[in-house]
Amino acid sequence: MGNEAYTAEIIAVGTELLLGGTANTDAQDVSRLLSELGINVFFQTVVGDNPQRMKQAVEIAKGRADIIITTGGLGPTFDDITKQTLAEAFGKKLVLNEEVADKIRVFFEKRLPHMKMTENNLRQAELPEGCVIFDNRVGTAPGCAFEADSKHVLMLPGPPRECREMLKTCVEPYLRKLSESEIHSHNIHIFGLGESAVEDKLRPLMESMVNPTLAPYAKDGEVMLRLTAKAESKQEAEKMMAPVLAQVCEVLGDIVYGVDTDSLENTVLGLLGEQKHTLAVAESCTGGLLSKRLTDIPGASKVYYGGVVAYSESSKTELLGVSTDLINEYGAVSSEVALAMADGVRLRLGADIGIGITGIAGPDSDSSGQEPGTVFIALSTKDKSLSKQPRLFHDRDRIRIGAASHALDMIRRLLTE
Amino acid sequence: MGNEAYTAEIIAVGTELLLGGTANTDAQDVSRLLSELGINVFFQTVVGDNPQRMKQAVEIAKGRADIIITTGGLGPTFDDITKQTLAEAFGKKLVLNEEVADKIRVFFEKRLPHMKMTENNLRQAELPEGCVIFDNRVGTAPGCAFEADSKHVLMLPGPPRECREMLKTCVEPYLRKLSESEIHSHNIHIFGLGESAVEDKLRPLMESMVNPTLAPYAKDGEVMLRLTAKAESKQEAEKMMAPVLAQVCEVLGDIVYGVDTDSLENTVLGLLGEQKHTLAVAESCTGGLLSKRLTDIPGASKVYYGGVVAYSESSKTELLGVSTDLINEYGAVSSEVALAMADGVRLRLGADIGIGITGIAGPDSDSSGQEPGTVFIALSTKDKSLSKQPRLFHDRDRIRIGAASHALDMIRRLLTE
Repeated sequence: MGNEAYTAEIIAVGTELLLGGTANTDAQDVSRLLSELGINVFFQTVVGDNPQRMKQAVEIAKGRADIIITTGGLGPTFDDITKQTLAEAFGKKLVLNEEVADKIRVFFEKRLPHMKMTENNLRQAELPEGCVIFDNRVGTAPGCAFEADSKHVLMLPGPPRECREMLKTCVEPYLRKLSESEIHSHNIHIFGLGESAVEDKLRPLMESMVNPTLAPYAKDGEVMLRLTAKAESKQEAEKMMAPVLAQVCEVLGDIVYGVDTDSLENTVLGLLGEQKHTLAVAESCTGGLLSKRLTDIPGASKVYYGGVVAYSESSKTELLGVSTDLINEYGAVSSEVALAMADGVRLRLGADIGIGITGIAGPDSDSSGQEPGTVFIALSTKDKSLSKQPRLFHDRDRIRIGAASHALDMIRRLLTE
Repeated sequence: MGNEAYTAEIIAVGTELLLGGTANTDAQDVSRLLSELGINVFFQTVVGDNPQRMKQAVEIAKGRADIIITTGGLGPTFDDITKQTLAEAFGKKLVLNEEVADKIRVFFEKRLPHMKMTENNLRQAELPEGCVIFDNRVGTAPGCAFEADSKHVLMLPGPPRECREMLKTCVEPYLRKLSESEIHSHNIHIFGLGESAVEDKLRPLMESMVNPTLAPYAKDGEVMLRLTAKAESKQEAEKMMAPVLAQVCEVLGDIVYGVDTDSLENTVLGLLGEQKHTLAVAESCTGGLLSKRLTDIPGASKVYYGGVVAYSESSKTELLGVSTDLINEYGAVSSEVALAMADGVRLRLGADIGIGITGIAGPDSDSSGQEPGTVFIALSTKDKSLSKQPRLFHDRDRIRIGAASHALDMIRRLLTE
């Protein structure tokens, strides 16, 4: 198919998806990879563990896609029908792969010594003849791929961790080889402006773009732009992207918090580590969320000392040394109290930077009548104090996430100014 | 169709789903409701904002389902093609509904007074002739439903909050009316035993069940059992479920933490409120996650005083009064330090119950060589001290979630013994 874009269809197999017990994150993960590789996805289908309906879904996909990628249904039980169905649809036999069978035996002995492996488990080693085997590093069922009737068929395990790992280690290299040209991308992370405002700023640039392309994604109050180039080599792709990347960063300025980074909290922890600064936080309305986001990341303890969830007046006075007079004078939700919290937690824990957050997450207003979304954030260091009242609205979740992100952004700006 | 089970197909519309920017949680939410109502879902399809492919998906669904439910594509832009496509597929005209148009005008004036509403927005008020309108309480685009060619077609908005709200307030009552028999269910929430162990205990009971039915779902280290009965009236359904519910609760004993509750944290906050007890927590390896889970729930501040994220030694000694000698003698990750943290946070905040959590979330072992998953949890009140070392493993996320859940379960057990 040369340099023409491939078309792929994703078929997720599993009755639990049809019962609503779980979201189809596998399809999302596969789609994201295909999008990065410049492969079009026009349909995702979910079907249960039912051979007849599974066959119907495969026939439809065969008629409209070049690449069929399935997730799920590779396990050891008779409910697991994916390999059988795909092999039949493409006239392939399933044969026992001895190497894979040995691996499964070893896996059982090593990981589950107290359990006797049943013969069922060896069904996972039955694979379509002549297929490429995708090693499963975190589970027992291997994935596989074969080519038949001018179609590429790839089968991946259903458990999200296994699927994700296999996408990275096996599927990405496999699909990259299919294409004569290489696809590479950079992710530009933005905080402080909405998706449509970002698009407005970049419209003149985006309108004329064909290769590379620029696509915006919005999530949790942040915007991510994916810059993707298709070229004959990685070097060539990078050369095409470099001027665009520079231009986007120049147009957007300091609302870009990172390129190819994971998150705002990751960026902040990275800056703290580089500059050897330590952090402590005092949270009221975010109730531990900021701290949770920081400590989601392994190694946070090197720069993060912890802090206080000040959900009551006693926690503000006892643990942070905020004076009752100050609270009475300005109210618990005020810029002054946020600053006293930031100072208090910084001094008590001996950190370089202190953060204080106080506000109303809702759904109800507080006793003084302040509306949900009223949030004050303060940052304190030995030499300086900053404070901010961000515009936050919608629901409790979004107010809390937004407040934590604004606090992270204040630290980022302090460390990059 | 009398008492025969209906078959439904879900079509989610949106290019962002095909790009992997977001998981298809709408399909999950719709599927879960349909499963509760005893309506079979055999396929979910995702299609982009492309009229031709959307039409193809609708034609396929029309050929194999009684009910077609779409999510997404109801917005104001020309990308939003759902109503157009469905109306054409079923030979219906789109007509402007004046009442809906007025509501959209009012919504704009009230919520976004600084923005001028463009005429585009009134496209959201164009609806298939003779349809039932589903009011959108959290956004502008209404949903709708019509019956044609012996099929029921329902269209819901794409933003998950809007979709979820409409499912509850409009779709559930609409679908209940379709069926001559009524479907009712109870959710039994379990903590402390895995899915397969729960199934083993209930196998004799589950094997013989036809109506009501019992289905297990596992998530985040918890198990939920859904008990569903189909009968001519709600009263009849309840009568059928009552003995089974009692039997399940008896077989499972105190690992059942609630029936028809939302979560462990909700149950705990409820018990604290009823018994007028207050809580404070000191977290090390969970880094604020327990506090975040408690404060996710509106009104938590009535019984939750807050606490300390003790991510450094100074935070344990300064904020909680844990002695340096104790840490040196037993190590920061020990039952003794967990208990000192629980006592410290309880006394400093003047709460009735204190929780202390210390452990290693990983991915690496700590300097003393203790493995990730080593976690000590302590509970302290004026009169008693309890401690626990739960079995936790897998990855950082699961260790942290598990530790927070075990802490919540200790509080629940204290308040229900």
